[in-house]
Amino acid sequence: MAYQGYQGGYGGYGGQQPGGYNQNQGGYGAPPPMMGGAPGINPETQRIFGVVDRDRSGKINAEELKSALVNGRGQNFSDTACRLMIGMFDQDHSGTIDINEFDRLYTYINQWLNAFKSYDRDSSGHIDEGELSSAFQQMGFRFSPDFIKFLVKKSDPQNHREISVDQFIVLCVQIQRFTEAFRQRDSEQKGIIQISFEDFISVALSCST
Amino acid sequence: MAYQGYQGGYGGYGGQQPGGYNQNQGGYGAPPPMMGGAPGINPETQRIFGVVDRDRSGKINAEELKSALVNGRGQNFSDTACRLMIGMFDQDHSGTIDINEFDRLYTYINQWLNAFKSYDRDSSGHIDEGELSSAFQQMGFRFSPDFIKFLVKKSDPQNHREISVDQFIVLCVQIQRFTEAFRQRDSEQKGIIQISFEDFISVALSCST
Repeated sequence: MAYQGYQGGYGGYGGQQPGGYNQNQGGYGAPPPMMGGAPGINPETQRIFGVVDRDRSGKINAEELKSALVNGRGQNFSDTACRLMIGMFDQDHSGTIDINEFDRLYTYINQWLNAFKSYDRDSSGHIDEGELSSAFQQMGFRFSPDFIKFLVKKSDPQNHREISVDQFIVLCVQIQRFTEAFRQRDSEQKGIIQISFEDFISVALSCST
Repeated sequence: MAYQGYQGGYGGYGGQQPGGYNQNQGGYGAPPPMMGGAPGINPETQRIFGVVDRDRSGKINAEELKSALVNGRGQNFSDTACRLMIGMFDQDHSGTIDINEFDRLYTYINQWLNAFKSYDRDSSGHIDEGELSSAFQQMGFRFSPDFIKFLVKKSDPQNHREISVDQFIVLCVQIQRFTEAFRQRDSEQKGIIQISFEDFISVALSCST
């Protein structure tokens, strides 16, 4: 596999927001005034929270989230994707999220779904190598064809052909984290860093899911 | 967090074998002559395979493995640990292992259990920071106290205190993989490598679980 470096172009990706999609997609608008239920939470979100929270604990865990999310293959989202997303919004590290955290997660997932749809040009429900390459270009990355092949193979270990939306979310979040860690160490933006053994393991373990 | 580098000492870890434990532990001996069942497989292993293979498919997947393995907390092994171990012995990438692959996995797990017991000096069923530090020293690693703290925190995200046997297996396999990847790039054994952006992501994604 040949590596070409990132050629100075990481951009397009910030914070916890998926990059490269149209921020003006639908979904629900500004929260209405409180009408019972959790303060400041849209009633539609409250309804969905109630459906996803199957054991009525007032909290959603990765398993409940998994049951509620289906990808373009008709499969539930992977454990990894659900654990990752819960972890991103689970501020007290309890392994669960409450309705306020779910409100943000719900927006986040909708943003990813819209981003994925825009990258899935043939509306197959999956992203292939060409579509993934374009997606990353739109996000500001310039990855080599071999690297794109590697990413598809890694994300779709069974068939090595295409990426479902949950695999896409996991991949993008990981790349986003690695990019941030790399950038912090690449002060001169050379595309090459020096890294020690412990730091290397630490970054790899911290950024992986 | 301070990183001290690895100080030239990786050793003690090779291939798929857990390091730093007594190879002369019990378990079953050399396979007896075939007496029906799979050729060359110990009848006791065949019996255990039959118990773990709950759907009688002739194959074991990560879920079936999970149901069969319990850690010192009385919890089933994590999805991550089971997927990792199945993946290590699943030569055709089917997500399942047959009886011959299970034969090797069973030996492997027993080796880990014995290694873990030897590191768990107070026989608590878990490994704390001090025990983990000694364990890695026995495996030839010299990690800083801060890094050991980080590893415990990463492996035990709920309590940040101690590591169960399944968390220990996942951690050691990851460190083993990262060490190998690092060593390949550290030809002069300086404990510091230069790495490009794509290579960095590629290593991190390949070695993580």
